Amino acid sequence: MTFQIRTEILADLARGAAFLGTGGGGDPYIGHLIAREAIAQYGAPDVIDVEDLADDAVVMSIAGFGAPTVQIEKLIGGGEVELALATLEHHLGVKASAIMPAEIGGSNSMIPILLAAMRGLPLINADGMGRAFPELQMNTFSANGIRATPLSVVDEHGNFAIVSADSDKKAEAMTRALAISMGLRVFVGCFPMSGRQAKQSAVRSTLTAAYEIGVAIREGRAGKDVSQSLVECLNKGGLYKNARVLFDGKIVDLVRETTRGFSVGTCHLTDLSRSELDCTVIFQNENLAARIGGRLVAMVPDLICIIDRETGEPIPTQSLKYGQRVKVVAMSAPDQLRTPQALRLFGPAAFGIDEEYVPIENF
Amino acid sequence: MTFQIRTEILADLARGAAFLGTGGGGDPYIGHLIAREAIAQYGAPDVIDVEDLADDAVVMSIAGFGAPTVQIEKLIGGGEVELALATLEHHLGVKASAIMPAEIGGSNSMIPILLAAMRGLPLINADGMGRAFPELQMNTFSANGIRATPLSVVDEHGNFAIVSADSDKKAEAMTRALAISMGLRVFVGCFPMSGRQAKQSAVRSTLTAAYEIGVAIREGRAGKDVSQSLVECLNKGGLYKNARVLFDGKIVDLVRETTRGFSVGTCHLTDLSRSELDCTVIFQNENLAARIGGRLVAMVPDLICIIDRETGEPIPTQSLKYGQRVKVVAMSAPDQLRTPQALRLFGPAAFGIDEEYVPIENF
Repeated sequence: MTFQIRTEILADLARGAAFLGTGGGGDPYIGHLIAREAIAQYGAPDVIDVEDLADDAVVMSIAGFGAPTVQIEKLIGGGEVELALATLEHHLGVKASAIMPAEIGGSNSMIPILLAAMRGLPLINADGMGRAFPELQMNTFSANGIRATPLSVVDEHGNFAIVSADSDKKAEAMTRALAISMGLRVFVGCFPMSGRQAKQSAVRSTLTAAYEIGVAIREGRAGKDVSQSLVECLNKGGLYKNARVLFDGKIVDLVRETTRGFSVGTCHLTDLSRSELDCTVIFQNENLAARIGGRLVAMVPDLICIIDRETGEPIPTQSLKYGQRVKVVAMSAPDQLRTPQALRLFGPAAFGIDEEYVPIENF
Repeated sequence: MTFQIRTEILADLARGAAFLGTGGGGDPYIGHLIAREAIAQYGAPDVIDVEDLADDAVVMSIAGFGAPTVQIEKLIGGGEVELALATLEHHLGVKASAIMPAEIGGSNSMIPILLAAMRGLPLINADGMGRAFPELQMNTFSANGIRATPLSVVDEHGNFAIVSADSDKKAEAMTRALAISMGLRVFVGCFPMSGRQAKQSAVRSTLTAAYEIGVAIREGRAGKDVSQSLVECLNKGGLYKNARVLFDGKIVDLVRETTRGFSVGTCHLTDLSRSELDCTVIFQNENLAARIGGRLVAMVPDLICIIDRETGEPIPTQSLKYGQRVKVVAMSAPDQLRTPQALRLFGPAAFGIDEEYVPIENF
């Protein structure tokens, strides 16, 4: 299937990507504006499937990197995104023939659209997560032995670095340190791989999934319960399964700080009717685990999303506020995110959560 | 003048370089051992003057980067030094034709000997400081508009990065952040420049000066007062002038911590005979300013060195200890370090010292 990222689908795509961002991945509104401008200026990029790639195609990824709390104050020019790719290409001595999002969640779904439009390159309908994760090594490329490095790191002033490390976890540490020194909102050109490697590792059809989720939320607003429309869309049989509303309540406490290069914290909610029932969601850029009455009900890599209870609008962690009335929606991660190799990189233990991973359908 | 760095001169050279390190530049003993091994394995490198360079020669510098407190626990293999150069060469697409020390102080006089020997390249009898300074932009190359970047950063595991920044101060911030994430003992291939640029900016004959100082200390041990032999050597008319013993006493208090990627602190001394007279030396890797009875008596860029009062052995800041009996020796910096551009980069204000720069001869 080949389609185009037309301006008309961007709002739905951004909304769905924000939902899949599970709180992180960068502000989708800003990303949406940037992608719209790029399409107006350079034309709509073609979207291709992973299977359309030649085995020797040169695939590169692009992603914003930092803390979402910073990103909403430090906007994007566009040139830094193209420079990130050009820097990686120069280092490798090859040109990219297709762009693949590293993560579909949040604005990191939109940045590759900007780049593909600027460069006239095809955009691949796939990514390395089917969601968003806070660290570089947390994706299905790394889980399949495909390396994030060499990677480029670029800021809005044109400062740049190239990083090569003996593991993607080390590359994360080096890139995080650089990002902090560069203002904590940088762009990373990464995961140079062949078409064959993309076929081995990518999570398929995630641009399509984001779009369909965005549509379901928008159309659900016309009905009685937007979360119902959303859950039905998710459970209709695709990448995501076992979607359910975990909690319906309001935010009564929020601890959030920008530290170690991340936005980390805990969001406390109480039930609207019965105040004895409470829910906590902890996050590191993205939502990591949800507890109700102290008992775990969902955890990474399964997706935990907080949405506005009336409009269904996904609320990223940097926009959570005291008093917001929200629903917590969760669903199972794509199968590729639940392999033993994948769980080592981004299961609960990778985030310092002591409990063993329990798939959401088993709670 | 062309001579060779033979094994026999290394001990004197290292001792003199440690003195010029003014407390920093890395442990000269470790550097000495490494240079000795490299000469045994690869042969003695030729030393050339800056004036021997062709205008279009490709000059590159190499330096250890981090905190001296870390360096004494984290040793060097040698491969990382060569990788730093090779990484920079690969990025630039040119090969170095000569190696110039970035700083003559401490082990950073020895690392270029290792590299020149490994590569069979000539070593330039000059550097960018005539001493040591803690930050990347603090040298006469930067003061003359020659850029530290692009530069390479390499650790002992083969992890590396390339940094390009819009100023050398920004490059320092990025490289410092990277160095911390890489264990705070890394090697930096930097200041790629032409022979013409080297002639415009380098501090001449600093290898020779370090050697002569090392000899003066060794030979002075046979006499009554080693510091007298040292001061006479320094005042015989060369790069350094106005040498004097500022203080003769013992260390009665020492505050030292490894923070922000540096070893910073204050060393307090009292006079051996009259306990009412006290001296404090503050340092950031290198000694920055000395006060006696609260009054400034010497400050950067002039050189402040702490030596053992019996042997004259220079004591780097990481080896200062309570109870040590020492002399504080100071002397004027080479003229190239006292220009307005130079003082902006490494005068007292660059280190947060409020007082205006007063040359040591005016105190």
